Amino acid sequence: MFIENALQGSPATTTAGRFRELWDEIAPIGRDARTGGYLRYAFGEPERQLREWFRQQAERRGMPVSDDGNGNLFARWGDPEAGDAVLTGSHFDSVPHGGAYDGPLGIVSAFLAVDELRAAGVTPARPVVVGAFVEEEGARFGVPCLGSRLLTGALTPERAAGLRDADGVSFAEALGDRPAGARPDLVAGFAAFVELHVEQGRAMVDRDASVGVATAIWPHGRWRFDVTGEGNHAGTTRMADRRDPMLTYAFTVLAANKEARLRGAHATVGRVRVEPNATNAIPARVTGWLDARAAEESTLAELVEAVRAKAAERARRDGTEIALTEESATPLVGFDADLGRRLAALLDAPTLPTAAGHDAGVLAGHVPTAMLFVRNPTGVSHSPAESATDADCAAGVTALARVLAELTSRPEPTGDSDDPAGRADRSGAAT
Amino acid sequence: MFIENALQGSPATTTAGRFRELWDEIAPIGRDARTGGYLRYAFGEPERQLREWFRQQAERRGMPVSDDGNGNLFARWGDPEAGDAVLTGSHFDSVPHGGAYDGPLGIVSAFLAVDELRAAGVTPARPVVVGAFVEEEGARFGVPCLGSRLLTGALTPERAAGLRDADGVSFAEALGDRPAGARPDLVAGFAAFVELHVEQGRAMVDRDASVGVATAIWPHGRWRFDVTGEGNHAGTTRMADRRDPMLTYAFTVLAANKEARLRGAHATVGRVRVEPNATNAIPARVTGWLDARAAEESTLAELVEAVRAKAAERARRDGTEIALTEESATPLVGFDADLGRRLAALLDAPTLPTAAGHDAGVLAGHVPTAMLFVRNPTGVSHSPAESATDADCAAGVTALARVLAELTSRPEPTGDSDDPAGRADRSGAAT
Repeated sequence: MFIENALQGSPATTTAGRFRELWDEIAPIGRDARTGGYLRYAFGEPERQLREWFRQQAERRGMPVSDDGNGNLFARWGDPEAGDAVLTGSHFDSVPHGGAYDGPLGIVSAFLAVDELRAAGVTPARPVVVGAFVEEEGARFGVPCLGSRLLTGALTPERAAGLRDADGVSFAEALGDRPAGARPDLVAGFAAFVELHVEQGRAMVDRDASVGVATAIWPHGRWRFDVTGEGNHAGTTRMADRRDPMLTYAFTVLAANKEARLRGAHATVGRVRVEPNATNAIPARVTGWLDARAAEESTLAELVEAVRAKAAERARRDGTEIALTEESATPLVGFDADLGRRLAALLDAPTLPTAAGHDAGVLAGHVPTAMLFVRNPTGVSHSPAESATDADCAAGVTALARVLAELTSRPEPTGDSDDPAGRADRSGAAT
Repeated sequence: MFIENALQGSPATTTAGRFRELWDEIAPIGRDARTGGYLRYAFGEPERQLREWFRQQAERRGMPVSDDGNGNLFARWGDPEAGDAVLTGSHFDSVPHGGAYDGPLGIVSAFLAVDELRAAGVTPARPVVVGAFVEEEGARFGVPCLGSRLLTGALTPERAAGLRDADGVSFAEALGDRPAGARPDLVAGFAAFVELHVEQGRAMVDRDASVGVATAIWPHGRWRFDVTGEGNHAGTTRMADRRDPMLTYAFTVLAANKEARLRGAHATVGRVRVEPNATNAIPARVTGWLDARAAEESTLAELVEAVRAKAAERARRDGTEIALTEESATPLVGFDADLGRRLAALLDAPTLPTAAGHDAGVLAGHVPTAMLFVRNPTGVSHSPAESATDADCAAGVTALARVLAELTSRPEPTGDSDDPAGRADRSGAAT
């Protein structure tokens, strides 16, 4: 009976079977029938359904749920007085027409890992908390990792409250209240954070492994470039008289690609907004968003500066004006080195860096943090083609359960996590 | 009393004053407070208000209104039995955030010209018809001059009925019925068409004239280019592994500009759609729209072929696929040469060609057609910066009244309009 209850009465006899069963509960939510991709935006209807599903899952497991006042949810297993908790989990929200796994895999796996531990009769010496962070992708309000940045104080509640979506709705309106902002009381109660995530590349395929351990997140950021020209008639305006911002935009797209390749960095312009966006009108304004990442902060800075200089030179030729604005920038995040080594040894798993941003990257400045990656056969992410096999997802659940068992086996601090010097070092690396 | 009634009881003592009075009635309709531009789309709420305003203006003047079953409205002054009518008028719809004058100026001026004629005691020997064509810009259903194309049979009612706007609403649904299609019975009843329009360039400024007469419309068209690649994560996908359609799009924008300059032609990419259009996602697909125009049809064909070849070559390098689709193409339209000379002499006005498409270009294959242009100090059109002084607009009203008086002064055909060989020539030039 204990085991059956722990597995939530599931008839499935394997972890892969139980994974598939739980996964199918959320698979239809927010899926676009045409593309097969997901439209799960923070506080949009699908994401609200997923939040409700989170509460139901927690309730089924007898895990009380709390909200941090910023839109992040936490479900707790274990006595709050038993010491600092081990936090796991991820996010529900997607990019437009994104894949199924990016985010939700970490939350589903967290609940299943709790089930595995209970089925194995594990009684953790410190609590396990399953978390769901809000607006990780920044797809609705423009700032990625919005929930974790608020929680840790990296973003002020004033600035977050005023962020608006494409329809003019503010984050405060969507949240239903002014965000609470930094919650050091909550953050101090986490002994460690382990985020499980689908891999967003093919490194695990190359290494022939189901599960890996991340070591660092590349420095990365978003820069908006606004090009203003003169809106005019496409037919009657002489070429020499034009001040066409689309030309400056197009040149900047190609320049960003070239400058990134020259430096072994990554640069993408995947989003554009055109005013008025009519076939027979020269635009008045074109806004593009540059996503840039590099292994070294100096390389990233050089890359952005090179793009800025090239774009400005072209704008002079086009008779347009260009302004480059940093919307977000995240420095190099080195995860907790001791914790990473310990987990890689425990799981006999390969280690790898990543160029993607995660809530784990934000938490890492405050809590000893690690990430587990689950293999993605296509290597594709932020697209309906993103995938993971049930067998690999089950391996992820098993790995996460082993990690949680290890980290909650003793009430004393994990690794070097409470070493103030160590924290200071991480903080230093993150500026 | 006669004069007062003819001027609709206006207290204004000048044509400019009466223009401003009538203009102010429609100026607020569909204006976007933020940009100052207009959002007047076929059968949208503002355009419906303008159609209702058209009916009221006609009623005030005792001009019966008929609908041709395609959404085009016609208000008649004079006995239908008195011979073929002289048609004047334009359109109400705008491009997104377009100017105030493009279209509505021709309709407002037509009603005011009728008032001027009546005030002067002119009794025309043939009817005057004021027309309002639907969907001239193609901003809602994608095909410019939709109403005049339907009326003349250049577009089948089946194809028009199935055109859909961005929300999936079909033209038939917006119209409230299947369009009637070609109405040769109506078209045969027009002895001439004179469309008054704001100039969409600065030729009249250079010539220091308030009003000009158009001689021809450049061949022009719209080509959609769909670039498909592989949607993927902007952060984690290696540059060498990408198949990024934004690069192919950007290259095509620059190539179109360069190829047009080389040929003295016009090319614009003013509209783009990106899927998924997210900052941290390499797009799966980017669609652009090329607007191209040239003085000669052979030049236009060479231009489009050159852009197609350059874009295809770049797509091979980018690992993307590109497909170019002609959405509309309008051959060279020569307006009625005799009519144009006659009006230019009557008004002592300069003549000029134009690179913009107009309903007049569609009607020109069926009815002797001319266009009057009113000076635009900015030269800008399809933008809130489009402008015309009240004095120049009044000069346009006066010129149009003189043209209508001249063309309706005799019940026999105007110019060479009923010469079948002449019609065949025009038709030949238009293929």
